[in-house]
Amino acid sequence: MILVRQEIGEVLRDYRQQKGRTLRQVASRASVALGYLSEVERGQKEASSEILASVAEALDVPISTIMREVGDRISILEGVQVFPDVVPDDLVAEVGSELSFR
Amino acid sequence: MILVRQEIGEVLRDYRQQKGRTLRQVASRASVALGYLSEVERGQKEASSEILASVAEALDVPISTIMREVGDRISILEGVQVFPDVVPDDLVAEVGSELSFR
Repeated sequence: MILVRQEIGEVLRDYRQQKGRTLRQVASRASVALGYLSEVERGQKEASSEILASVAEALDVPISTIMREVGDRISILEGVQVFPDVVPDDLVAEVGSELSFR
Repeated sequence: MILVRQEIGEVLRDYRQQKGRTLRQVASRASVALGYLSEVERGQKEASSEILASVAEALDVPISTIMREVGDRISILEGVQVFPDVVPDDLVAEVGSELSFR
C-alpha cells in the first residue's frame, strides 16, 4: 500500500537537506518538536495540515510544490505497482533508491 | 493558512460526484465509516494515509492523481495569497467557486 505520509516525509527531508538546514533549525522555526518532525520525515507520523503548513513555511517551500512532488513520486511508485512483473528488479531498485536519496 | 486536508476533501468529493457515487457507496467500499468520510470531504478531519489509500482505491482514482490535483489547487490559492491586493475581488470569487464546484 502506498502511504502518502512516507512520500511527504521524504520530500520534506529532501528540501531540508537541499537547503542545508538541520532538523533542529526547521523544527524551531516551525514551532514543532524536533522528535515529531523527525518522525514525520521518516514517515512514521502523519503531519496535520497545520504542521505541514508551518514546516513548509519554515523551509521556504510552497505547499503546492511539496504536494506536486509527492504526487510525482507516488506516480512512479504506482507505475511500478501496476506492472510489477514486466519491470526488471534492478530498475525497481534504481527508481527506489532515486526516490530515497536524490 | 492553507490547509491540505481541505483541498484533499474537495478533490475526493469532486471525484466521487463525477463518478456519480454516493458517500454511502464509497464509504462501504473503502471500509470507512460514512460520517468519517463525510468529515474528511468537508475538510474537518485529517485522513490517515491508510484511509486515503482505501478511499482512492474505492474511487478508482490513483493517489498520485489526487495529490497532483491537490497541489494544483493549492498553487492557485497561493497565487491569490501572494498578490491579495492586485487580484480583483471578482476574480478571487471566480477562482474560489471554480475550486469548489468544478
